[in-house]
Amino acid sequence: MRPSGRKPEQLRDIRITRNYTKHAEGSVLIEFGETRVLCNVSVDEKVPNFLKGKGQGWVTAEYGMLPRSTGSRMAREAAQGKQGGRTMEIQRLIGRALRAAVDMKQLGERSFTVDCDVIQADGGTRTASITGGCVALVDAINHVRKRGLITNDPLRHLVASVSCGIFGREAVLDLDYAEDSNAGTDMNFVMDDSGGFIEIQGTAESKTFSLDEMLAMTKLAQGGIRELIAQQKKALEMK
Amino acid sequence: MRPSGRKPEQLRDIRITRNYTKHAEGSVLIEFGETRVLCNVSVDEKVPNFLKGKGQGWVTAEYGMLPRSTGSRMAREAAQGKQGGRTMEIQRLIGRALRAAVDMKQLGERSFTVDCDVIQADGGTRTASITGGCVALVDAINHVRKRGLITNDPLRHLVASVSCGIFGREAVLDLDYAEDSNAGTDMNFVMDDSGGFIEIQGTAESKTFSLDEMLAMTKLAQGGIRELIAQQKKALEMK
Amino acid sequence: MRPSGRKPEQLRDIRITRNYTKHAEGSVLIEFGETRVLCNVSVDEKVPNFLKGKGQGWVTAEYGMLPRSTGSRMAREAAQGKQGGRTMEIQRLIGRALRAAVDMKQLGERSFTVDCDVIQADGGTRTASITGGCVALVDAINHVRKRGLITNDPLRHLVASVSCGIFGREAVLDLDYAEDSNAGTDMNFVMDDSGGFIEIQGTAESKTFSLDEMLAMTKLAQGGIRELIAQQKKALEMK
Amino acid sequence: MRPSGRKPEQLRDIRITRNYTKHAEGSVLIEFGETRVLCNVSVDEKVPNFLKGKGQGWVTAEYGMLPRSTGSRMAREAAQGKQGGRTMEIQRLIGRALRAAVDMKQLGERSFTVDCDVIQADGGTRTASITGGCVALVDAINHVRKRGLITNDPLRHLVASVSCGIFGREAVLDLDYAEDSNAGTDMNFVMDDSGGFIEIQGTAESKTFSLDEMLAMTKLAQGGIRELIAQQKKALEMK
Amino acid sequence: MRPSGRKPEQLRDIRITRNYTKHAEGSVLIEFGETRVLCNVSVDEKVPNFLKGKGQGWVTAEYGMLPRSTGSRMAREAAQGKQGGRTMEIQRLIGRALRAAVDMKQLGERSFTVDCDVIQADGGTRTASITGGCVALVDAINHVRKRGLITNDPLRHLVASVSCGIFGREAVLDLDYAEDSNAGTDMNFVMDDSGGFIEIQGTAESKTFSLDEMLAMTKLAQGGIRELIAQQKKALEMK
Amino acid sequence: MRPSGRKPEQLRDIRITRNYTKHAEGSVLIEFGETRVLCNVSVDEKVPNFLKGKGQGWVTAEYGMLPRSTGSRMAREAAQGKQGGRTMEIQRLIGRALRAAVDMKQLGERSFTVDCDVIQADGGTRTASITGGCVALVDAINHVRKRGLITNDPLRHLVASVSCGIFGREAVLDLDYAEDSNAGTDMNFVMDDSGGFIEIQGTAESKTFSLDEMLAMTKLAQGGIRELIAQQKKALEMK
Repeated sequence: MRPSGRKPEQLRDIRITRNYTKHAEGSVLIEFGETRVLCNVSVDEKVPNFLKGKGQGWVTAEYGMLPRSTGSRMAREAAQGKQGGRTMEIQRLIGRALRAAVDMKQLGERSFTVDCDVIQADGGTRTASITGGCVALVDAINHVRKRGLITNDPLRHLVASVSCGIFGREAVLDLDYAEDSNAGTDMNFVMDDSGGFIEIQGTAESKTFSLDEMLAMTKLAQGGIRELIAQQKKALEMK
Repeated sequence: MRPSGRKPEQLRDIRITRNYTKHAEGSVLIEFGETRVLCNVSVDEKVPNFLKGKGQGWVTAEYGMLPRSTGSRMAREAAQGKQGGRTMEIQRLIGRALRAAVDMKQLGERSFTVDCDVIQADGGTRTASITGGCVALVDAINHVRKRGLITNDPLRHLVASVSCGIFGREAVLDLDYAEDSNAGTDMNFVMDDSGGFIEIQGTAESKTFSLDEMLAMTKLAQGGIRELIAQQKKALEMK
Repeated sequence: MRPSGRKPEQLRDIRITRNYTKHAEGSVLIEFGETRVLCNVSVDEKVPNFLKGKGQGWVTAEYGMLPRSTGSRMAREAAQGKQGGRTMEIQRLIGRALRAAVDMKQLGERSFTVDCDVIQADGGTRTASITGGCVALVDAINHVRKRGLITNDPLRHLVASVSCGIFGREAVLDLDYAEDSNAGTDMNFVMDDSGGFIEIQGTAESKTFSLDEMLAMTKLAQGGIRELIAQQKKALEMK
Repeated sequence: MRPSGRKPEQLRDIRITRNYTKHAEGSVLIEFGETRVLCNVSVDEKVPNFLKGKGQGWVTAEYGMLPRSTGSRMAREAAQGKQGGRTMEIQRLIGRALRAAVDMKQLGERSFTVDCDVIQADGGTRTASITGGCVALVDAINHVRKRGLITNDPLRHLVASVSCGIFGREAVLDLDYAEDSNAGTDMNFVMDDSGGFIEIQGTAESKTFSLDEMLAMTKLAQGGIRELIAQQKKALEMK
Repeated sequence: MRPSGRKPEQLRDIRITRNYTKHAEGSVLIEFGETRVLCNVSVDEKVPNFLKGKGQGWVTAEYGMLPRSTGSRMAREAAQGKQGGRTMEIQRLIGRALRAAVDMKQLGERSFTVDCDVIQADGGTRTASITGGCVALVDAINHVRKRGLITNDPLRHLVASVSCGIFGREAVLDLDYAEDSNAGTDMNFVMDDSGGFIEIQGTAESKTFSLDEMLAMTKLAQGGIRELIAQQKKALEMK
Repeated sequence: MRPSGRKPEQLRDIRITRNYTKHAEGSVLIEFGETRVLCNVSVDEKVPNFLKGKGQGWVTAEYGMLPRSTGSRMAREAAQGKQGGRTMEIQRLIGRALRAAVDMKQLGERSFTVDCDVIQADGGTRTASITGGCVALVDAINHVRKRGLITNDPLRHLVASVSCGIFGREAVLDLDYAEDSNAGTDMNFVMDDSGGFIEIQGTAESKTFSLDEMLAMTKLAQGGIRELIAQQKKALEMK
């Protein structure tokens, strides 16, 4: 029995609110239960140095947690003068995941920066960031397309992400914080709308996991990501 | 005529939402029109070194803007490795203002950190931070009082803040971004519920201002702050 | 009765020594009683990026205290790897104040950096920095004019600054450290030679201040700044 | 056909040299083909603050590349003033992997720091770091045991790591740099000597990967890690 | 013929002004010609961690240049967020030199920090810093002795420093900036009042130097340091 | 009698291994007894800004110690966010020494960066770095010459370095760590193959040194450097 009372294969309530703030080219508040992440995408009409003159665009991500998005206050990274290892790890993951969603050649020489800022954390902030960031990225791309600056659609796939874990010997989907703290294994999946794997990261916490457990989690993730992509499509009014 | 169509002495719509996030001891979303600031107060059962053993508490503040809270994306301070001068100036101001609201002796040896994070900026983020931060601070103090750790009420005064400016030769209250960008002078006031001044900061932008202009702005601020404190009381259900 | 024995409206002894060091285009040692600040102005034949190609110049300031300019040694900011919030706040104020003194269009595309370094601190280092920095800036501008690189005089106004406070219920002018530490309110004024206000910053320390107190301090400041500007003119041999 | 000419399931030549330097309590040079990493373990008779008084030890890791361990020189992180995101990601992975090897309770209140410094890089530096770091950690633990400070053996399992990839539609084991640069997917495995999974990280590079591909890579990894653990045992002269 | 018109063995005019600022326990302005360095010594009643409980004191130094102490403005190290290599090199040299002047055991568990800040640079700032810093250190030690906290005199020797160079094939003493820029070799000497060498640093600039040249410079330095120590004694009114 | 049992004028065993790693244009492992330093030289087809367009090249050096190259672990400078003063001092010395070896004009507009990383420290890491770095620099220059990018030989001199000390009243050559820790004076010499002095740095440790001692050390250094240059030539197969 999960602390949340959910069935093993059950996602938390997912809410996707587009146009959450007014300045960004794409702005989405995504909620995975009580986890809330604001994903703002900004378009910049230039690319990093290593891409200059190559006729392609770029997608990158930054991640942050508001100091009191968590149960006890975390020090503000800006005040400490550096981003921690966990922050770097997560923002690199978000960037890789979202680059898999688009065809860089079709973006033109411009950059899309996806800022994922955690307003409230309750487990799964990185998976929510990827799932919400993808919707905001689509909005930002469409914003540029409406201005006629991009002609072919750069979107190759919708991309979503979910976590799984082994909780009390059973594989469960979409861990909240109470479950995550007690799970024996934590595994994050990123997949696209054709069912292909983009990223898998599994970490044993207190004890190692077996191939069977890995397969059970993978199967749950496949179902969960299908649901998340359905939610993305609904939010974006895609058929 | 103001760009916003407001009368010179008219505040923007003010909205104060308490308990906006679930972890913080005090959590308030304050909106001054389209400016939205999340004020979270965290209680820590210790004080900075310079206060250890003095039998009193401390109130401090940190301020940040989400990278795309503004019209064009600002670099993330955590990624740049330092807080800018404007950020430091503002968070020092918020801290001074809110320390004036409470009796440090009554807090006990504990610290209250007020995190003001700007979700969306449209002028007046520092005045909204102080006004919303005060409500969140009251909630956090009451949270500690309910647990019986503080017996006498440390709250001396409610504190609020508003800006004024000289727009087209006339003093106007509570500048939004469009007005602020074109105002000849920008003046921020912090006052308490007994009408005392806590902080005044006036800056000439394109031309100097006169004593008469200063007095006209001061008069508008007095009225505006009365209204803001009424809103704070209503939100807090104080009589 | 003030600790210094001065009358409420009495400035400390002001001394302005031009050409204090030999390398800078403008170099002034200013003394407000025992407070001594060295103001060096450097001319650079380029402007910051945001002004490139706009046909105007720039004035900026940096501020620092020698580690033992104060009663107890302060850590050296260079060794700590960052400038503190107070330093940033003050150097931003000095920059804004001195930009009000000149017509940027007449400077040409060049920058004037005003370095204010406190040799000995006894209260009022920011007001001394502004007052002395203005004299050094005039010298640096004239240095460039003599070389024929600027034709019209960019100087619009002399600018000076002074502090006031409420000491024992009475408004007093130009606080020294002993007075500042015990004053109920600290208020800094920046004005120009036509009596216009450039900046006002008033902070309540132990208790709030009233409108009457603010007006009493403002009146003292107007008189003090008239005297300081007279001293600036005398030092510069302006009529 | 792999660029290296190896069979899909073939590791590179593995060499493990113990006591490579003289100061460290454990010092191992590990070579995966032309990749060479020096793993030095240092014992410190104290634990981080968050573990003080809990009667257990700690294992942590740091990772670095010599500036010219790579084909073109990388900037020295010490000179740049910070560790990059990739460095942080890798050293966090090494630390997690090696903590799974030992029983923290049996270490006593002391820390083992595993420094993995890449002398020459040719793909797989993180997997070599984990595999070599484990041998050095065993040596360091035995060093402390010989001094009688640890009585029960804290070693629970040997831990090793290897990468797999999809190269030209086929799963291959232990990618070198030429293969890694052209592989469609890069997947790193950490396992222990009982066949349990400690960490899995798979990243699609140019295209997504399928469940079948993931399983093929997993199978190769299981075989590779068995071989690596055999090499570790041989080097350690364990039966 | 030297640019300065001085004879090869002639020092610049040396001026030593004690009690230059009022807060420091020792405060000396030293001038070597147009080079002016303010040396302030601060006493702190504790020692660095590595000396705690060892019953001895410590002497350390920090060095800085005001941004416009030089011909063209140098960036402020505090604003850049770090001290440069030259600064570190010099402050380490000053610290080593002045530690040679005192018996650490006699200082008690307290630290003397010597801040050397260059007001105006014209060559030889490090040698002036050592020479002036020694006088300020003596004053600070005597300040503590007068308060009865140190009983035996910790001063072992006066220490002074001077540079020499090869200018136009001839050895010359105490290079000013014009000479230093054109000298083939730059050699700094630190010696004590008994003629012992504390530090020698010689650097070939455009061509190597010979043993004969080294000896010629050493001889000049011995004479120069005798004169500097005589000046120190005179300033300190030592017989 | 020296702790090492060597005669006063006896170097440790010197080993110079070229092509130690495969990526760098010059890669030398140098061993002075148990001190081992890896010297990698990287060629970059551009020069620092201050040399752009001047038709000459540049040689610079960086120095680092692996955290456990020493008896007790030193904090990793990359993790601490800055290079320490000792590191800066040493890398500046190496750079100056090696620039004396070449004719910058003949290098063309390209930079040679000499990375000296200490694998194992046992005294004399800076002298080993210079001596080994020179061999690696020659290899890197020849690498560029073979590609036809440099026509005239830029090498003016081989450069080597050795330390001397006063150990038990006697001058001794090439101190190892045990000797260095107990030597009364530590003196480092850099010379070229024509016997000219490039750099001399002598530091008294517990007591001052005399001119006679300095001369005795200088004489030992001359002999030692002759031997080191013979070893460099042998390693480089120069006649």
